[in-house]
Amino acid sequence: MASKLWQSTATGSLHPLVETYTVGDDQVLDQHLLGHDITATKAHAHMLEKIGVLTSDEYQQLAAALDELLNEWKTGAFTLTSEHEDGHTAIELYLTEKLGPIGKKVHTGRSRNDQALVMMRLFIKTELEAVAKKLEAVAQAYAGKIAVIGQTEMPGYTHTQKAMPTTVSMWLGSYHDAFHDLQQLVAHSITAIDQNPLGSAAGFGVTLPLDRQMTTSELGFAKVQENPMYCGLSRGVFELIAVQALNPIMVFAGKFAEDMLLFTSQEFNYFKLPVTMTTGSSIMPHKRNYDVFEIMRATAHAYPNYALQLQAISTGAGSGYHRDLQLTKKITMDAFTSALDTLEVLTLCVSELEANTDRLAEAMTDELYTVAKINELVEKGVPFRDAYQQVKQSFLGE
Amino acid sequence: MASKLWQSTATGSLHPLVETYTVGDDQVLDQHLLGHDITATKAHAHMLEKIGVLTSDEYQQLAAALDELLNEWKTGAFTLTSEHEDGHTAIELYLTEKLGPIGKKVHTGRSRNDQALVMMRLFIKTELEAVAKKLEAVAQAYAGKIAVIGQTEMPGYTHTQKAMPTTVSMWLGSYHDAFHDLQQLVAHSITAIDQNPLGSAAGFGVTLPLDRQMTTSELGFAKVQENPMYCGLSRGVFELIAVQALNPIMVFAGKFAEDMLLFTSQEFNYFKLPVTMTTGSSIMPHKRNYDVFEIMRATAHAYPNYALQLQAISTGAGSGYHRDLQLTKKITMDAFTSALDTLEVLTLCVSELEANTDRLAEAMTDELYTVAKINELVEKGVPFRDAYQQVKQSFLGE
Amino acid sequence: MASKLWQSTATGSLHPLVETYTVGDDQVLDQHLLGHDITATKAHAHMLEKIGVLTSDEYQQLAAALDELLNEWKTGAFTLTSEHEDGHTAIELYLTEKLGPIGKKVHTGRSRNDQALVMMRLFIKTELEAVAKKLEAVAQAYAGKIAVIGQTEMPGYTHTQKAMPTTVSMWLGSYHDAFHDLQQLVAHSITAIDQNPLGSAAGFGVTLPLDRQMTTSELGFAKVQENPMYCGLSRGVFELIAVQALNPIMVFAGKFAEDMLLFTSQEFNYFKLPVTMTTGSSIMPHKRNYDVFEIMRATAHAYPNYALQLQAISTGAGSGYHRDLQLTKKITMDAFTSALDTLEVLTLCVSELEANTDRLAEAMTDELYTVAKINELVEKGVPFRDAYQQVKQSFLGE
Amino acid sequence: MASKLWQSTATGSLHPLVETYTVGDDQVLDQHLLGHDITATKAHAHMLEKIGVLTSDEYQQLAAALDELLNEWKTGAFTLTSEHEDGHTAIELYLTEKLGPIGKKVHTGRSRNDQALVMMRLFIKTELEAVAKKLEAVAQAYAGKIAVIGQTEMPGYTHTQKAMPTTVSMWLGSYHDAFHDLQQLVAHSITAIDQNPLGSAAGFGVTLPLDRQMTTSELGFAKVQENPMYCGLSRGVFELIAVQALNPIMVFAGKFAEDMLLFTSQEFNYFKLPVTMTTGSSIMPHKRNYDVFEIMRATAHAYPNYALQLQAISTGAGSGYHRDLQLTKKITMDAFTSALDTLEVLTLCVSELEANTDRLAEAMTDELYTVAKINELVEKGVPFRDAYQQVKQSFLGE
Repeated sequence: MASKLWQSTATGSLHPLVETYTVGDDQVLDQHLLGHDITATKAHAHMLEKIGVLTSDEYQQLAAALDELLNEWKTGAFTLTSEHEDGHTAIELYLTEKLGPIGKKVHTGRSRNDQALVMMRLFIKTELEAVAKKLEAVAQAYAGKIAVIGQTEMPGYTHTQKAMPTTVSMWLGSYHDAFHDLQQLVAHSITAIDQNPLGSAAGFGVTLPLDRQMTTSELGFAKVQENPMYCGLSRGVFELIAVQALNPIMVFAGKFAEDMLLFTSQEFNYFKLPVTMTTGSSIMPHKRNYDVFEIMRATAHAYPNYALQLQAISTGAGSGYHRDLQLTKKITMDAFTSALDTLEVLTLCVSELEANTDRLAEAMTDELYTVAKINELVEKGVPFRDAYQQVKQSFLGE
Repeated sequence: MASKLWQSTATGSLHPLVETYTVGDDQVLDQHLLGHDITATKAHAHMLEKIGVLTSDEYQQLAAALDELLNEWKTGAFTLTSEHEDGHTAIELYLTEKLGPIGKKVHTGRSRNDQALVMMRLFIKTELEAVAKKLEAVAQAYAGKIAVIGQTEMPGYTHTQKAMPTTVSMWLGSYHDAFHDLQQLVAHSITAIDQNPLGSAAGFGVTLPLDRQMTTSELGFAKVQENPMYCGLSRGVFELIAVQALNPIMVFAGKFAEDMLLFTSQEFNYFKLPVTMTTGSSIMPHKRNYDVFEIMRATAHAYPNYALQLQAISTGAGSGYHRDLQLTKKITMDAFTSALDTLEVLTLCVSELEANTDRLAEAMTDELYTVAKINELVEKGVPFRDAYQQVKQSFLGE
Repeated sequence: MASKLWQSTATGSLHPLVETYTVGDDQVLDQHLLGHDITATKAHAHMLEKIGVLTSDEYQQLAAALDELLNEWKTGAFTLTSEHEDGHTAIELYLTEKLGPIGKKVHTGRSRNDQALVMMRLFIKTELEAVAKKLEAVAQAYAGKIAVIGQTEMPGYTHTQKAMPTTVSMWLGSYHDAFHDLQQLVAHSITAIDQNPLGSAAGFGVTLPLDRQMTTSELGFAKVQENPMYCGLSRGVFELIAVQALNPIMVFAGKFAEDMLLFTSQEFNYFKLPVTMTTGSSIMPHKRNYDVFEIMRATAHAYPNYALQLQAISTGAGSGYHRDLQLTKKITMDAFTSALDTLEVLTLCVSELEANTDRLAEAMTDELYTVAKINELVEKGVPFRDAYQQVKQSFLGE
Repeated sequence: MASKLWQSTATGSLHPLVETYTVGDDQVLDQHLLGHDITATKAHAHMLEKIGVLTSDEYQQLAAALDELLNEWKTGAFTLTSEHEDGHTAIELYLTEKLGPIGKKVHTGRSRNDQALVMMRLFIKTELEAVAKKLEAVAQAYAGKIAVIGQTEMPGYTHTQKAMPTTVSMWLGSYHDAFHDLQQLVAHSITAIDQNPLGSAAGFGVTLPLDRQMTTSELGFAKVQENPMYCGLSRGVFELIAVQALNPIMVFAGKFAEDMLLFTSQEFNYFKLPVTMTTGSSIMPHKRNYDVFEIMRATAHAYPNYALQLQAISTGAGSGYHRDLQLTKKITMDAFTSALDTLEVLTLCVSELEANTDRLAEAMTDELYTVAKINELVEKGVPFRDAYQQVKQSFLGE
């Protein structure tokens, strides 16, 4: 690895074991995040021009170089290598190689923490917006399926026991409503973190008269996160707020997977997926397995780990920047990937869901109608509790 | 325990070990929750009158009895005992003892799940509102303290190492902003769950023409939670949404506790609490320990367990009611108690915080001003990176 | 509350809010733990006699008083009240009231941390031994049931789909083996923590020539935990080691509950419990619900919270005693209660399990035997993969 | 991807989205695990020869091919690509390409679950042994450092407040003992899982007369895991048992990191690491940051997630194989990597630790000796409580 910009050459480079342990996956992560870092760097440079730190010409050169880098990154032409410690260093190296001393100036009035903060904030907002869209898509898939097979009657279960008659519409509709409503929760979590941390520098602000409102507008944030120490204090916690908003999504996905694993068993056999969405067995040729719902269930069960890690790491460090927070990047990114992938495959599964209408019709057995019988009696004036005992005795002969 | 209303006498009573294991703490919990159950029962009765299931006279009798019960509960005169399985049964027994057959009628068109759902929903809304108020109080405590000691300079730390000069105002202000902002998150979580589940019965609705809009207005919900299966599906998950909103509160409380434990050590000695808020040692007479911040830190570290349990239990059960969900009551209640207690004691601690101004003044040593020196050079036109190396060499002599 | 022994009267008593927040449930917990504290106190006094700090007469008086207190505690005559901060103070108050200055002497050479450490260590060992016994009991229940219904054939499932024929013996036997094997894990966890911390004082030892080997023998520990700082460092972590050993128990209990909820559904209907172990519904008279397995499943899903809290709290505090560790008491106790209760009710359920042999016989359908058909072909010399395709085509007609 | 061996060509290949979602990272993981799969495959083939399923010549050819594959894998010449679904398929493809029909025969009497089970069991045993070695290394590092700087006095802390005098030897010794003792816990966890699952086939055994004792000996397991359903039931749970054994390691590492972050702050300044093990700041040239301990602390705080996920996933699936369990592979592997890396860097840090002896000497202030003063009085016959009050008053003047 090249000598780091901020590492003293006199004292030698970092011990390789310490380097490996502290840097971790940062390079791989920053490859994904680099676009947001470039965007924020450009906004920072633009602001530096406005307040006179950069000349107009310097800014134009920087902006052009950053646009070029962004384009190379988008097309896959720019890849972080072991020469770059991370994305922040990569951008600075790119600019200094291209523009010489001007490239160094872009770091005026900000620190690497600053860059990490704003980059992650932009990333999280983008991802939350993507989640909201996928929530709408999955809700639409449920609605579409209800339009086709919703009128079919099916048994309603409580305690995994037949309880009362219901319809495919009510069952699928409950998931429709759940995913639909969660869009608002996700939108609210964007609101909760929609503050621009750029300008907090190392966590205590700078003496330069930064125009933080300008970068806020340019980057599309709702407001400036004024107190620089609050910017740092919120790192990890804002990640937690965002990732937590995904938890309920995964619970509902897990519940639907659990429903489907029950309803696709041979004993229930109420619903199915096309054969191209199920898997076979290496030794049992008759098997059609719903692995997709098993992976979804397991993913849902494992999912709390993301928010948990973010909370544990954040709680473990007091105010002021600590390197601990670096670990929150990967956790946050993995949490989004897992939720987005699950929503996508769930949308597909719901769209392809088929009802075994014969089996569902057979399943509408007598015990589902005991409540209806009680209600008939109640409507005739029998007190509820008496009606209950009357039906119970007729039914069970007890 | 008295024979349960819904338990068949013919088949004998529940095995005591199964009873103990399944009922758990429910009685103790329901003692706290009973008020909400009574309130919802009254609204249900009122609605039954409107749709003609109860006569006006019947409703009046029920309403009077419920008011009386509510009053007895508030004054502590009514206590759940081992005769009542839980609060729902207690209300029904109370009404039937007092009003005979009319007492039984109030259960028409609803189930115990229904009652549990609406009771918990009302409880959660009430508690979230209480949390929002305490967040405002703690933010005010920070603001009040800033007004008194905010101008004092103090070292800013990163990596637990002296970094740059800051002020007590910026440090305490970061917590002010954090707690202040979380009020919105809590308010949003109320919005997310502000739906009336009463009327979902056992999770599949009823054939009776319930006026769910009426109970919704009467109980102060924002809207009807229409799909009865969604009402059940959301149990545990809405609890999760509410409890999650408390997580960031506890992270910030934990961070402040960590800051204080550092800043009250003899080596730092920047801040203190009055002696009546610290504890001594049974064998070391010189000790003044900040146990309050240690319990706060530990509480913060343990806190993720609440949301985790809610998520794990909810994910573990498919759609339709499962007794699993009963366990979400205690978890939710404990989560609120822990957060509310922490906010209360934190507010006190902040109000009583004292700065050791002499120690803070001594602590403003040279190394805090290296960035300022770099900035001076930058303002003179030296590129940032060059200024950095220049100051570094002058400072460290490397 | 009475002035604490170690609290200076001159500085006034602790602020009530701080007191409530820091003391928490300690009184209730210590009521359960008091026996172990008394036992350890007696051993300490005995050792103080041996090294000459107490006279023989003083020790005899202390021993008699401690025996009396132990007896009062066992019979429920001695109850911690708000006058005692906790069990440690209660013992000392009891002794000083009874014996005057001699009562004070028993605290020589130890601290409250010391007491808490040894008390919890004794408690954990006792509870782990109780768990081991219950593991044997549940394994015996499985063995007993296999002896009665083990020969019955049943379908084996993978992916919740019929896979191959198996027997009740193999199914129940898998749980037998699981619980049987876990006895060793529990025994190993005792070994891991079987070290006597008494004598570590406040965590740095004492200058008095304590005979730690003597208290070790008297209290039945395997060895002295020599380094006093290690005694403190291990608090919370030894609790974690013990509670972790319970995790696999709860996973298997949860899995069995999940199996039973599937196998008792009307669609499977392979097994049942007596009607006195199931519950009815308040509105559906035909229902027989297996709530006991739902509570077991939910308890299993929630169970990781105990180890998690112990780990989080322990990790959050460096070496040396911190009040944080007080919170580990309740968590540890709750973890044992939950596991022991679950094992007890599980043993009952297994003992009472009944097979629906007709339904099981009906369920042995053709697709369970495809592997057998392949193996027949393989034995005739057909390569496995070819046999697989051959059977698949005959079976599915694909 | 090539058509999977077990996928029907007639029904078309798996939907790509389902494929991606269900296969996940398996290829990358299996690249690491392949060695164990090959080893177990060879033992299985050897056993098939013994029981007459393979001729001696067939076995020789298979053994030679497997040795070659193992060698290619070890040297990095064999890499899983998108053509192989996973390692199991890769081995079979390799053998069939090389040996034709003989290659297919090796799958006789086992299933892919079988392979996954035995491969992971071998992996876990290997990793646990590696952990035990690293625990010994870190304990040795502490012992070595104690030999050099152990005699130095240092303040002992409780509640992050100066308490009593101690030595570097006692402080470092507490960690020595902790890591030393954990070797036994790790050894015990090997014992708990040291059972050979190979031969369980799809989880219900096979009719072929497999010689399971033979593969057990050949693979170095302590015993056969007899019940095939238990083999499957234990998947995920044995992983949990193994990973849990790493939890205490990480707690102690986290505590040491926390100690070091305190003791390396400028205010304490008791210890340091060489400059090549600390990092600088991009804007503050004077900083020497102990990032290595921050990453260690954060890693420790995040660490519970591994056991948590294993427990949650395992609890979420009943008996019989479920695809859910596939996710336990990556979690287990990541848990080992994280613990092994931490132990390695911790060993380095301890070896390189330096004491600032002047600062430590200065820090041995009067308040550390109050207990000693009390003990002097106690030795003169003053009851402990009286001595305590006497010293307190002289010290604090209260």
